[in-house]
Amino acid sequence: MSLLVIGTVAFDAIETPFGKTDKIVGGAATYIGLSASYFTDSINLVSVVGADFPADAIDMLHQHKINTDGLEIKQDGKTFFWSGKYHNDMNSRDTIDTQLNVLLDFDPKVPEQHSNPDFLMLGNLMPSLQRKVIEQLPKRPKLIVMDTMNFWMDIAMEELLQTIAMVDVLTINDAEARQLSGEYSLVKAAAKILMMGPKYLIIKKGEHGALLFNNKSVFFAPALPLEDVFDPTGAGDTFAGGFIGYLAKSKDISFDSMKRAIIFGSAMASFCVEKFGTENLLHLEQSAIDARVQEFIDLVQFDISLV
Amino acid sequence: MSLLVIGTVAFDAIETPFGKTDKIVGGAATYIGLSASYFTDSINLVSVVGADFPADAIDMLHQHKINTDGLEIKQDGKTFFWSGKYHNDMNSRDTIDTQLNVLLDFDPKVPEQHSNPDFLMLGNLMPSLQRKVIEQLPKRPKLIVMDTMNFWMDIAMEELLQTIAMVDVLTINDAEARQLSGEYSLVKAAAKILMMGPKYLIIKKGEHGALLFNNKSVFFAPALPLEDVFDPTGAGDTFAGGFIGYLAKSKDISFDSMKRAIIFGSAMASFCVEKFGTENLLHLEQSAIDARVQEFIDLVQFDISLV
Repeated sequence: MSLLVIGTVAFDAIETPFGKTDKIVGGAATYIGLSASYFTDSINLVSVVGADFPADAIDMLHQHKINTDGLEIKQDGKTFFWSGKYHNDMNSRDTIDTQLNVLLDFDPKVPEQHSNPDFLMLGNLMPSLQRKVIEQLPKRPKLIVMDTMNFWMDIAMEELLQTIAMVDVLTINDAEARQLSGEYSLVKAAAKILMMGPKYLIIKKGEHGALLFNNKSVFFAPALPLEDVFDPTGAGDTFAGGFIGYLAKSKDISFDSMKRAIIFGSAMASFCVEKFGTENLLHLEQSAIDARVQEFIDLVQFDISLV
Repeated sequence: MSLLVIGTVAFDAIETPFGKTDKIVGGAATYIGLSASYFTDSINLVSVVGADFPADAIDMLHQHKINTDGLEIKQDGKTFFWSGKYHNDMNSRDTIDTQLNVLLDFDPKVPEQHSNPDFLMLGNLMPSLQRKVIEQLPKRPKLIVMDTMNFWMDIAMEELLQTIAMVDVLTINDAEARQLSGEYSLVKAAAKILMMGPKYLIIKKGEHGALLFNNKSVFFAPALPLEDVFDPTGAGDTFAGGFIGYLAKSKDISFDSMKRAIIFGSAMASFCVEKFGTENLLHLEQSAIDARVQEFIDLVQFDISLV
C-alpha cells in the first residue's frame, strides 16, 4: 500500500531544559515519513526546501525508503526555519523565530507517478494547500488523514473547515478540539467535529495520551510514562506517521485496526521524545518497537469478568 | 473482610459553572464509605461531627451499612465546614471558607469492637491523626491505604513522612507526587516515593486518569470521557472508597487485583462527578456499576499480537 505524505521539511533549532541544538533537520513531513518508514516502504514525499538543504539529509530520507521525487528544491530559496524553547514542564513552548522562506510561495505538486496513493497523510500546513493536494489526485485514496493546528483556526477557519470536510481522520490536540468546536467537554467537542465531515477524530493529549472517536465508539491510549522527556518536538507528527504507516501496512482501516495503529503511533512518539529532534527515529530495530508496544499492553491491560 | 475508614464527615457548600448548593453533607470519610458500601457491608467509620449534624444524614450512612459507633458527636461543637468554587475548567478551585470547628481538637478513637479491621483506609487528615489510628490497632491490618494532600506537605512534612512510612498504598495527585519527591517525571517521582515506605503508589491525574506503581510495574487507568462533569468534589475519595472496597470484597491484594480495584474506583468516581456532592452515590444499582466498568473495558481494550 503506497503512502503519500505532504508537509514541511525544515530546519529546527530547539532548546529544552536538557540542552539545545544547532539547526537540525525537522519538519512535519520528515517526522511523519521517518516514523511511517518502520511500517511501509512505499512512501512518497511532497514538500519544498531551499538550496541550503544538505544532500546528506536527503540521503537519510532515501535510506528510509522515502521517495523524494516530490521534494522541490528551490535553488534561489532558503529552507523553512523554526526555533523554539520549551518551558520546564515540557508542555508549553515559546517560538523564538520563524522564517517561512520557501514555504511562503509553496505550491505543492504531486508527481504524476505518485498521484494514485492508497493512503494520504496531510501534515500540518496551510489548509488550502492540503486541499490542493487532495484535488490533484485523480482517484480518492482509501484513507485521508489530516493534521492541523490552532494557528489555522485563528486566521483561516473557513478554508480549514473546507479541507476538514474532505478527510477521513482529523488529528488535533485537546485545546484545538475545544477551539474548533466551542465545547469544553471533549466528548461534546468530538461529536461536533465529527459533524464537520471526518469519520474519525483523534484528540492528542500529549503526556496524557490520545483519544480516538467515531460516531459510535471511543478508544483511549495512554502515553508511556517515561523517566525523561528530552524534546517533545515532532512527537505529534511521529505519532501520525506511525498511525498511518501501521494502517498502510495492515491494509485494514476498521476501528479495531485504528486502535492498534494508535498504540503503534504512541510507541513511535515515545521514542521520538527520548532524544533531540529526529535522532531516535533514525536507527530503530523492529524488536525495540515491539518491546515498546508490549510496554503499552502491560501498562493498560487488566482482566475483569463481569458476572 | 472488614474495612475501617477514618476521615472527615463535613458540610460542603459548592459552586460550579453548573450551579451551586447550600450546605450539603460531604467529607472524605462520607465519600469513601458510600463508595465502598457498593462492595462490602462491613464498614466502620471513625470521625467527628457537631450537634448540628442531621440525624437523617446518619440514617443515610446506616442505610449503606456503614457502622457509626466510631462517629463522635460533639454536643458543644459544630461540624467541619468547607465552601469552594470551581473554575470553568473544573480542574482548579478556590476555597471560599473553611471552618474546622470540631476538627480542631479531634482525637480519633477506634471503638474496641472495630479495632481489628482487615483493611484500613486513612482518608485525608492531619498525618499525626492518621498515625494515631494505626497505633490504636492491636494487629496490623492486611492492607493500609492512605490519602493525603499538598497542605500537609507544606506544614507538616516530617509527620507526613512518618505516617507514609507505615502504610502499604499511598494515593496522591500528580502535583503532590512532584512536590513530595522533588521530581517532575512521574516515573522518577514514583521511584523516590516508593523508597519512603509504601509498597504501592497511586498517582491520581483527575480527568487524565490514574497510575499505579510498585517497584516492578506500572498500570494506567484512564478517566472515562464524560459529556459533562458537574462537580468534582469527592471524586478522589470516591475513587479510594471503590478501590479499597473492591479489594476488601475480593480478598485479593495482588497487583492484578489492584488493577481491577482501580478500574472499579474510577467507575465509582465517574458516577460521583455527574451530580452534585454525594447525590449520585446514594442509589446506584449493581447493573449500572457493571455497565460503567464495561465502558472502561471498551475504552482501553485493543488486540495486538506481536510476532
